[in-house]
Amino acid sequence: MAGDINRRICLAARPVGEPVPGDFALVETPIPVPGPGEILLQTLWLSLDPYMRGRMNAGKSYAPPVALGKVMVGGTVSRVLASNQEGFRPGDFVEGRTGWQEYALATGRELRRVDPALAPLSTALGVLGMPGMTAYTGLLTIGRPEPGETVVVAAASGAVGSLVGQIARLKGARAIGIAGGPAKCDYVVSELGFDACLDHRSPTLPADLAAACPEGIDVYFENVGGAVWEAVLPLLNPFARIPVCGLIAHSNATRLPEGPNLVPALMRAVLSNRLTLRGFIVGDFADQQEEFLTDVGAWLRTGQIRHREDIVDGLESAPAAFIGLLQGRNFGKALVRVAAEG
Amino acid sequence: MAGDINRRICLAARPVGEPVPGDFALVETPIPVPGPGEILLQTLWLSLDPYMRGRMNAGKSYAPPVALGKVMVGGTVSRVLASNQEGFRPGDFVEGRTGWQEYALATGRELRRVDPALAPLSTALGVLGMPGMTAYTGLLTIGRPEPGETVVVAAASGAVGSLVGQIARLKGARAIGIAGGPAKCDYVVSELGFDACLDHRSPTLPADLAAACPEGIDVYFENVGGAVWEAVLPLLNPFARIPVCGLIAHSNATRLPEGPNLVPALMRAVLSNRLTLRGFIVGDFADQQEEFLTDVGAWLRTGQIRHREDIVDGLESAPAAFIGLLQGRNFGKALVRVAAEG
Repeated sequence: MAGDINRRICLAARPVGEPVPGDFALVETPIPVPGPGEILLQTLWLSLDPYMRGRMNAGKSYAPPVALGKVMVGGTVSRVLASNQEGFRPGDFVEGRTGWQEYALATGRELRRVDPALAPLSTALGVLGMPGMTAYTGLLTIGRPEPGETVVVAAASGAVGSLVGQIARLKGARAIGIAGGPAKCDYVVSELGFDACLDHRSPTLPADLAAACPEGIDVYFENVGGAVWEAVLPLLNPFARIPVCGLIAHSNATRLPEGPNLVPALMRAVLSNRLTLRGFIVGDFADQQEEFLTDVGAWLRTGQIRHREDIVDGLESAPAAFIGLLQGRNFGKALVRVAAEG
Repeated sequence: MAGDINRRICLAARPVGEPVPGDFALVETPIPVPGPGEILLQTLWLSLDPYMRGRMNAGKSYAPPVALGKVMVGGTVSRVLASNQEGFRPGDFVEGRTGWQEYALATGRELRRVDPALAPLSTALGVLGMPGMTAYTGLLTIGRPEPGETVVVAAASGAVGSLVGQIARLKGARAIGIAGGPAKCDYVVSELGFDACLDHRSPTLPADLAAACPEGIDVYFENVGGAVWEAVLPLLNPFARIPVCGLIAHSNATRLPEGPNLVPALMRAVLSNRLTLRGFIVGDFADQQEEFLTDVGAWLRTGQIRHREDIVDGLESAPAAFIGLLQGRNFGKALVRVAAEG
């Protein structure tokens, strides 16, 4: 492969508001040569996830930003092409965080083996990967739904939301989804088995949500923010739990919304209803990975959990697909097939 | 005592903004006669607490409002005058919630015995009562300060805040108080042993707080809201805990503050710093009462905990003292001596 080209997508400019194609640059470099202890990986699948928008900003968040000119961060499933590291052999499949590029070097410590006999490789980036574990840990550790309780989640046809609702149902709770448009809402109810799914584009969303939650809301899994959170807040029951793992509705905001300032109303609700709001990222629950893979793997094999992928082909498709993800245009877990598996 | 008068303070009007004396009415009724199973109580001490402001509003909160024309709610320490209830004898002292009146009937179930040999009777409404237990349970169950961590609490010379900081210190944490004016701040540091205390009236409060918390804030015990919360938010460390038990700064608000709407910024902080906000009222932790009385009682006897009372005399003084409490004019636990103990 010497002399071959590694195509990479780098951060060319920090977006102002919604990212545009010019914020990304496709850069060609030689395929790297693995040194002592290093592994050469070929990317097969690249995951596109909302958190990446935060990494394009300069500001501090729970993780440092991508530096200008550097490869965009991202989870990947790759094939080992060459290895100077014990335990990794050409042909092995691994999940890692090697970013938006066709080839990458790794040392092995940051990789997790993926067995293609257990589940399709791409699931290691979705239902059996970071999004799935986000849903599983946030819902069960913070949300803790009880039988008969009502769980609400937005982006309900997406990688995280779809699993939140299905796990809530498996735990005996009611699952109410919110999604964009009738096709996604139909899918969430008829394929995923949610009790109801509401269109967040409806001007009557607050009333629709109230009607769908006649006994109030006990768990709101927060992954969007914005208008959905404002519709949820008045419906929360005493002692409701709100795991907060994402705020995609605010991702592209360049300034704070106009007033009034609703913080006092939010804090009043926290007090009056004894709410628990807790932010988390999946890495906070790394010790639950075995349990997650065991449980969700079993539910997947028995058909108790379904999932859906939205695949685009070729690394060069990643920027447009990512911009579409932030606009809610994907339908299912957003993935880039960077190279064929076979 | 037949024919004698029971003076009661009733809710005459729902306040618009800050309560005024005309929102209260002193009403005279006959002293009630205990029926079968009933106990006649004479109020000795009436507690004045910020939560009472919420009860004057019509809106739903964690407890129903006081009805117009009805006696204001409130915690009391009383002496048993007559009893048709087994286990209660004239001369006994009890703590209850008999409200702003000189005499009341009770059945006994809602009363807790108070032993004047263990601690002054009035402490059953303060450091060994509801405010003390609010501080103890909220700090230790939700805040969970670790040695070396920084705990911030406002209204630091008050019944709740003073105990929050002192318990934080006993657990090995740093305690930073916020209070109104130099006299209270001096007391909080020199008498209560906080590491620092800042004046919330200072225009440089955000900078003062940042300087007093060079390693950030791990626990913010929220009992005021408003500008203090806005100053605290940027200083919170990852995984900080925020027990929310009161929002006195918003008590008299008649409308939401002007924009921008800071809810997205608050939710962003919750996510980025993996914050836990949890509202509570003391009744949620009723099962910790024995533990609370044991621990705080011991700390009080050994002098590890200090407290201060701000006493006015006579039931008729209650409205003005309560209005003053909402303005921060009390210095220590606000109490009305309704009748002499001896």
